[in-house]
Amino acid sequence: MKNISELMIDLAYSALIYNNKEIAEEVIYLEEKIDETYYRIQEEAVEQAIKDGNSSKALITIRLATSIEAISDSAVQIAEVVLRDIEPHPIIKESIKESDITITLAKVSENSVLANKTLGELNLASETGMWVIAIKRGKKWVFGPTENTKIMANDILIAKGPIEGVKHFRDLCSGKSREI
Amino acid sequence: MKNISELMIDLAYSALIYNNKEIAEEVIYLEEKIDETYYRIQEEAVEQAIKDGNSSKALITIRLATSIEAISDSAVQIAEVVLRDIEPHPIIKESIKESDITITLAKVSENSVLANKTLGELNLASETGMWVIAIKRGKKWVFGPTENTKIMANDILIAKGPIEGVKHFRDLCSGKSREI
Repeated sequence: MKNISELMIDLAYSALIYNNKEIAEEVIYLEEKIDETYYRIQEEAVEQAIKDGNSSKALITIRLATSIEAISDSAVQIAEVVLRDIEPHPIIKESIKESDITITLAKVSENSVLANKTLGELNLASETGMWVIAIKRGKKWVFGPTENTKIMANDILIAKGPIEGVKHFRDLCSGKSREI
Repeated sequence: MKNISELMIDLAYSALIYNNKEIAEEVIYLEEKIDETYYRIQEEAVEQAIKDGNSSKALITIRLATSIEAISDSAVQIAEVVLRDIEPHPIIKESIKESDITITLAKVSENSVLANKTLGELNLASETGMWVIAIKRGKKWVFGPTENTKIMANDILIAKGPIEGVKHFRDLCSGKSREI
């Protein structure tokens, strides 16, 4: 639930920066998954409380899950700005791009070292600081790729990471740099 | 505002994992900063709307700021679990630690390559994927250190990053690895 809520926030900001409704719609879809998990956690917590004859653990669990659910609601609100065809002020987009932690987009060239390797093989996150949060392949999207997701030539990657990691990441995608 | 709200979430989870009230109190303190910024953004947005004779930009700005403010509220709710002396179920702590993105803690040894260097010189985030989100130095804390923050021997660092980056980070802190 924590992972999905963080992915939702990252995708919501991405949707905003790139004015992309498909990414925004994924945020709305993930909200349904969050809600399902949220209700399941509530049920399990209360069942456990009945077994224990004690409410304290159940209440903390429910409280934490409620906080995470609220984070995902905020992501939905950001995504809805994009879905409502409202173009945010350029200053807002710039302020997100110029954060210490930024979001960037790059196309994987045919001769990139990333092509035909899984994210697990590449260890991009620990080697470059850049997390791939979404991949556009042709007309399809892969949101929240895992270590088993293979990167292909011509993929468009959206990644989150430190601003000083962006150049290296883009050079790896273009094939200009071959050293991860 | 976006950076601070994300730091608050990371600190709130750190407070939870390490059952640390000082970190939780910092989350409460940062909420005040967020609120100040939030009200200033509202004021500026409405002033701008009056100048423009048009409300649309102001409403988007206010809406986005409201979403970010809601994220920081969720961080406060998580921090309050810690401040109320409630010990969360160990499974909750484990599930946060075992996320793809984890939080870890390590002490900087006298012979660590990190000692006496600024975060800007080290480029830890882009070289190892690990973001230092808080430093404990003696009895004092540095929350949300910047590129100008110098790491000192005996500092305790709390960092966020990919689970596969944790070993390298801890080895750099202990002095076992000297290659960043």
